[in-house]
This record gives sequence, C-alpha cells and structure tokens, in this order.
Amino acid sequence: MGRLTARQPVLRIRDGVCSQRPDTLAAEEPLEIRVGGRPLSVTMRTPGNDFDLSAGFLVSEGVVHSAGDVAAMRYCAGATADGGNTYNVVDVALAPDVSPPDASLERNFYTTSSCGLCGKASLDAVRTTAAWSVAEDRLTIAPETLVALPERLRAAQKVFDKTGGLHAAGLFTASGELLCLREDVGRHNAVDKVVGHALTANLLPLRGTILMVSGRASFELVQKAVMAGIPMLAAVSAPSSLAVDLAVESGLTLVGFLRGNSMNVYSGAERLHLPLVN
Amino acid sequence: MGRLTARQPVLRIRDGVCSQRPDTLAAEEPLEIRVGGRPLSVTMRTPGNDFDLSAGFLVSEGVVHSAGDVAAMRYCAGATADGGNTYNVVDVALAPDVSPPDASLERNFYTTSSCGLCGKASLDAVRTTAAWSVAEDRLTIAPETLVALPERLRAAQKVFDKTGGLHAAGLFTASGELLCLREDVGRHNAVDKVVGHALTANLLPLRGTILMVSGRASFELVQKAVMAGIPMLAAVSAPSSLAVDLAVESGLTLVGFLRGNSMNVYSGAERLHLPLVN
Repeated sequence: MGRLTARQPVLRIRDGVCSQRPDTLAAEEPLEIRVGGRPLSVTMRTPGNDFDLSAGFLVSEGVVHSAGDVAAMRYCAGATADGGNTYNVVDVALAPDVSPPDASLERNFYTTSSCGLCGKASLDAVRTTAAWSVAEDRLTIAPETLVALPERLRAAQKVFDKTGGLHAAGLFTASGELLCLREDVGRHNAVDKVVGHALTANLLPLRGTILMVSGRASFELVQKAVMAGIPMLAAVSAPSSLAVDLAVESGLTLVGFLRGNSMNVYSGAERLHLPLVN
Repeated sequence: MGRLTARQPVLRIRDGVCSQRPDTLAAEEPLEIRVGGRPLSVTMRTPGNDFDLSAGFLVSEGVVHSAGDVAAMRYCAGATADGGNTYNVVDVALAPDVSPPDASLERNFYTTSSCGLCGKASLDAVRTTAAWSVAEDRLTIAPETLVALPERLRAAQKVFDKTGGLHAAGLFTASGELLCLREDVGRHNAVDKVVGHALTANLLPLRGTILMVSGRASFELVQKAVMAGIPMLAAVSAPSSLAVDLAVESGLTLVGFLRGNSMNVYSGAERLHLPLVN
C-alpha cells in the first residue's frame, strides 16, 4: 500500500526561466467505506492506513466506540470487471451488538427533527451522539509546550517535505510527546486516521491528549475531537464560528493561530498554565 | 444574509503575555441543497451567495449547464418547529426538461459500473458527465500575468483579512482582470459559488478564463473547473496526483505553487507564452 506519493514531470518557471524536472505529488484516490456490505461514504484520500481511516470515520459518526465494536475490516475484491481488487473499497463488519449506521447518515448528523437545519442543530447532534464528555477532562498544559507542537508535527511529516501538499494531524501528550501522526490530502481524513488508529488500540476516549492539525479548525474537526474524547484541539490557522461554538458547548479547549511564540485561545483557557492577563 | 463573520472574545498569548480582545471569525453553518424538494447534499459553508453555491454544485455534478436549466431557487421555510426559516435549506426547481440527479449522486460520480472504484473510474466519470470540452480552448496567457493573480486575489478578499480563515476562488480573464471572487470556509464551496454565479449569468462554458484558488488543487477542484468549461486552474499550493491525471486527460492547464515569481506547470503548458526551456 505504499502509494503515498506519485512521480510526475513538471515544468518549473522561475523569474522567467523554464526548467523540466520530476516532481513528487501527494497521491489521491477515492475510498468507499462500506458497513456490512452497504456503501456508506466515499472520500478522496491519500492511500494508506485505510482501516484506520474507516474506523476513525465510524468513531466520528458515533457508530463505534471501542475496538470490540469492529468485528473485522477487509478490502473488497471483485469491484472491477475482471474481479480484481482496487484497494479502494473497505468493508467494515460490526460486532453483533452494534447498531449499523443510518444510510443517510451525513444528513442526519446535521439535522434533528425538532430544529431543522442550523448551527444549533449541528451542535445538538454532536451532544446527543457523543459517548463521553470532554468537559471534565483534567488535562493541563504549559503554553511553552503548546508552541513547540507545530514544529514537532512538521518535523515528523514524512510526505509533506516531498510534496508540499498534505495535511497533517498529530496526537500529543500533555508533555508534548507525539503519540501518532497521520497525513492525507484531506484534513478530515488525517484526523480520522489518527482516531481510528487509537480505536484499534482500544485507547478511546483519548483523555489527556492534544490533537494538533496543520490547517484551520472547522466544525467537523472539533466534532471529531469531541467524538474521540480528545479535550484539546490546536490548529495552525483560524477556527470558524461554529467550531468555537461547539468547543464552548462541549468543554473542549480550542487554540488557533498557533504559530511562532503566540496563539489564540477561543475556549477552555483553564487548561493552560497562564501568565497574568493584561 | 450578512453572516460572513461572527465576533468572539479571544485570549491572545504572545511571548508569554496574555491579553483579552474581540476577534472576528469566519461564519460556518450547514447548508442543505434540495432538488425538487428532495434532499441531495449537506455542506458546511460560510452563509451568503447560497443560490450561487447551490447552482454551482449542480453544475459540478453535471445536473445543469445553462441558466434556463434552473426554474427557481428559494430558501425553505418551515424547517423549524415554529415554522421559521433558518436560511440553511435551499430548494432548487429544475426546468421540466432537466433530469433530476440520482439520490446517491456522490457515490455515482466516482463509480462506474464497469470499473469499480479507482482513480481511473473517477476520471471516466468526469469525462462522461461533462457537457463540453476544455481541450480545444484557445486561451493563452503570459507568465507575468499569471504571477500577478495571487496578489490580486488576496487584495480583493474582503473577509480573509479580518478572519484569516477563508478560502478564496477567483475567476480571471487572460489579461488578469478579476471577473468574480467568492470566499468560503470550504474550498470547494468557494469554487461552486463562482461557477454558480456564472451559470446564473448564463456564461457557461467559461471559455478563455483562469480559475485561481488560494489553497491546494485537488481532484474535485479540477473536476469543477472542467465541468464549468474553465481551461486553466492555478493554485497557490500543491496539486494531488489525481488532480494532475484529470488535468492531463481533460486538456486543462494546471498550475501549482504559484507564488512570488515562480510556478509549476503540471499540464497544458502550451497555453503559457513560454521562455526557452533550459
């Protein structure tokens, strides 16, 4: 499954001068996730860690919560006309006592019957689906430890240096130790791969950990952290309004613009060992 | 619909010193797109230009090709318990002669019955769905004009300066004139908003134009350009392997790492007025 990158000739133009050279690109292929043989989702992802991605996706959607909830995962053969295996279709068999997800899961996750479709309904959906709360998590971390995480994430990224084209998600301890790093062309996929890896090791909920992402903090990334029981999400770039709303409501610590020696704390500042406020 | 941004208190920590201040965030809310009353897709987007977003999404999926294909668009009231309007559900009425999309459209777009799910099948799906070809487009552009586009896009971004959190998509002429700019928390949504605006003005296919995006060039962004008849996609960051494959197969010019005075040309270099190759 070593298809993380692909080689491609490229024409480089710099200051009006052209040169031909080979370039390394981040690989992108569709992945279909099936549950019990039934298609559930298609995502464009970087191949590799596909079982982690599938498991993490099901954690994010509230379908599974522990390693025992997944009976088996396999690549589906026979998807092509010649019966071959594209390694782009994963079928997840759930344990007998686990309810299969609704077919129209994506829509349901954002909708509740009482409230129509709005930001509030999206927050409600996460609250009613989450198997545990992050609000009581006793994680605390020093700001000096937090500001070191982006460089550690970057240093551990294998593929980005070659391609410049991958998002990264890293799971850290309160002392700044990297537990797990995953890269993907899709930001959500990188997080699902981290969470799925933890599910398989039966480490959920991920109490006392920090999830660091290379890009922005969207609603869906906060949702994934909450569903995995992670009490702190740190992002290099900006959060959205709904990401902050969900973090506040869930009791998750949300840090944005974590760059150089500075950061913005949007919620849950009590988890940081803070200097005096000016 | 002026909900592009939201204000939020934030704790700023810089060099170990804390300060409290208000911050401006990019707004994010779910949007459900319905066709003929039937739910088709839910996307997390920045509110505003929702009809453009809905129309552009339907162009990208091959459902509509001209302004006349859309009979009407409206926000659905009555989605909430009190009968109110969340302005987060758009219903598109198609013209009588336009076939409604398949309910499992997302999956179908990446799958063909003959080939299973793979990169090749994804390319085939775009080719068989596109209403026109960009391969014969006679657009040419000087590299000096191209390198000026990122700064023009950035200068025209209203919300990014405030929030640092929005993706932008801009449509330019061959002489570098900005025709349309849209911003969104979702990169795909920004492009759909540009394309939907053009559909409503009955400007499809967008021959002779350049689409410039603020982030990476994924398969789906190349797909959206091809479906709108745009012959050139330029991105500030890296393309994926499948994005390059689709660009090559479609005859679209794909430029990445367009920064400062340099760029990488991954396909369709004949549309650039090139200096000699070293």
